[in-house]
Amino acid sequence: MTRVPQMVVAMDWGGTWIRVAVVDRQGSIFWQSRVRNAVSRDKDELLGTAEGLLREAIEWCGPNPPVGVGLAIAGPVDGETGTLYQPPNLPMLDGVSLKALWEANLGYPVWVGNDADLAALGHFDYGAGQDAREAGEPPHTLVYVTVSTGIGGGVIDRGRVFLGRNGLAAEVGHMRIDIGDSAPRCECGNRGCLEALASGTAVARIARERVAQDDEQSSNLCGLAPDSITSELVFQAAGNGDALALGIVDRVVHVLGVGLTNVLHLYNPDLVVLGGGVTVGLNDLGLIPVIKDQMLDGAMSGLHKDFSLVASRLEDTAGMLGAAGLVWSAVDAAA
Amino acid sequence: MTRVPQMVVAMDWGGTWIRVAVVDRQGSIFWQSRVRNAVSRDKDELLGTAEGLLREAIEWCGPNPPVGVGLAIAGPVDGETGTLYQPPNLPMLDGVSLKALWEANLGYPVWVGNDADLAALGHFDYGAGQDAREAGEPPHTLVYVTVSTGIGGGVIDRGRVFLGRNGLAAEVGHMRIDIGDSAPRCECGNRGCLEALASGTAVARIARERVAQDDEQSSNLCGLAPDSITSELVFQAAGNGDALALGIVDRVVHVLGVGLTNVLHLYNPDLVVLGGGVTVGLNDLGLIPVIKDQMLDGAMSGLHKDFSLVASRLEDTAGMLGAAGLVWSAVDAAA
Repeated sequence: MTRVPQMVVAMDWGGTWIRVAVVDRQGSIFWQSRVRNAVSRDKDELLGTAEGLLREAIEWCGPNPPVGVGLAIAGPVDGETGTLYQPPNLPMLDGVSLKALWEANLGYPVWVGNDADLAALGHFDYGAGQDAREAGEPPHTLVYVTVSTGIGGGVIDRGRVFLGRNGLAAEVGHMRIDIGDSAPRCECGNRGCLEALASGTAVARIARERVAQDDEQSSNLCGLAPDSITSELVFQAAGNGDALALGIVDRVVHVLGVGLTNVLHLYNPDLVVLGGGVTVGLNDLGLIPVIKDQMLDGAMSGLHKDFSLVASRLEDTAGMLGAAGLVWSAVDAAA
Repeated sequence: MTRVPQMVVAMDWGGTWIRVAVVDRQGSIFWQSRVRNAVSRDKDELLGTAEGLLREAIEWCGPNPPVGVGLAIAGPVDGETGTLYQPPNLPMLDGVSLKALWEANLGYPVWVGNDADLAALGHFDYGAGQDAREAGEPPHTLVYVTVSTGIGGGVIDRGRVFLGRNGLAAEVGHMRIDIGDSAPRCECGNRGCLEALASGTAVARIARERVAQDDEQSSNLCGLAPDSITSELVFQAAGNGDALALGIVDRVVHVLGVGLTNVLHLYNPDLVVLGGGVTVGLNDLGLIPVIKDQMLDGAMSGLHKDFSLVASRLEDTAGMLGAAGLVWSAVDAAA
């Protein structure tokens, strides 16, 4: 008789996509699907779409029903009640407990967490954390930093998500590192936040500003309509040796080096995982070790230098895998 | 028959003092003593002095022996083995396990932690955390920041110290918030750290620089020998309406407001406790609420604004009380 592996259903409900997967204890994904998160729809329609995806996943499991459902969601969420609190990307879900709703509708236990926190848990349980364990160096404290349109993060200490009061810790993008009065404004209303200096949005903004100032039009970026300049194009131009793009990327490396040195001093991690589109651009240019060298230079003690810095190898699935990890650890704790 | 209360012996071994106390479960101190930490003495003499203090405390307990010994120590320490790693203020103790040594010599179980971490635990268990619980608002996440000669801190999340890899998280003084090339140098080798901008040392340094530049000698501080200017004198002059001193204090308030807003975003605390001499100076001038207003202005979301900011009411005993709290929680976990 073959022993059927236990499965969980895991969802990552972000600003752009709703993803769902069927995942085993080892983090292997057996089935997955996704739909666009059509936030223009009304609340019931949106909830129906997400619930429909979960039902598909549960049906896929067939005669081997999942042990539970894990949900990573973009916004502040109470881990115990599963209630969302003013999620900026999913405003219509304010006050909704997806845990209560779906436990009633689906008949399975549901665990819920913030998507950046659970992405960090995904990396700890199944990504770089797993790689480190296999290499005989199990990580104690992992910080995940996503450098994308914005900059966010999550912290895992000894297998547990560091939540803070409201599950909103590790907003590393909103750490101000430039208190100068002329520092660029951030979405959050402050100036000089890491996000305003090194996110994909910041890279594109800086490039547009430089192109507008570049009288000699010596950069290939100058031939583009300003609005069409993206961070991806800046990294591409840097890869082709474009001096203006290389200058922008150099500055991003420096600024991330400062921000991530702060991360060393604030969380004392032994594993730092970088994700997001800007990380992909930096990794393609071979710049992750350069950032690491800056962190080593800036670290205040030998023990703070005792860390690894890696680019994510899970990107799109980290949140789902973390949601799965949340279910497995709850199941284990109850056993 | 009177029931004799259980006691623990708690020590706080800092750079300047070695303090010891006998503490009950409620954090009441029944007996205490201290000696100067004569770091010029050799290792055995120093260890003998500290052990002698512990023996005094144990003897004080008489026929009611303590349930264990808790130790807060200035430096990186492995919580499991109790081994110190290159403590900057106690270099001769590098590699020593005070836990192993004193469990053997004294015959009591010993628990060890970093002094800033355990000061945070002291505030959580017996200081502002206790006040909040009594007011019906039990804190989830407490950040303790000491603004003194240097700036350090500790984080408690749901009753547990956030350690990071090596017990060296929450080095909030070495968070760079000014990446400008002309930002002041910090002891740690970087520029623009919070400690270089807002510690007692920084306040005194800035005052000396301003006095040297003040051609009109309009400040009372100008009458002093530059080397005699301390942060205490600056706060005192500010209290007397001295314009130069007030300008310096204003800047410190602004800079701490930025640093503590970062703390909100990085740890999402519901309780922030400030300690140290600079805090005393700021508190005497009624400036803690001004710092809080700046944090409220800078906080990125309503949930990040959901915190209290208070000045410590435990100052000298926080580390010992946290060491006591460490013993009580270990005893409870084993029960």
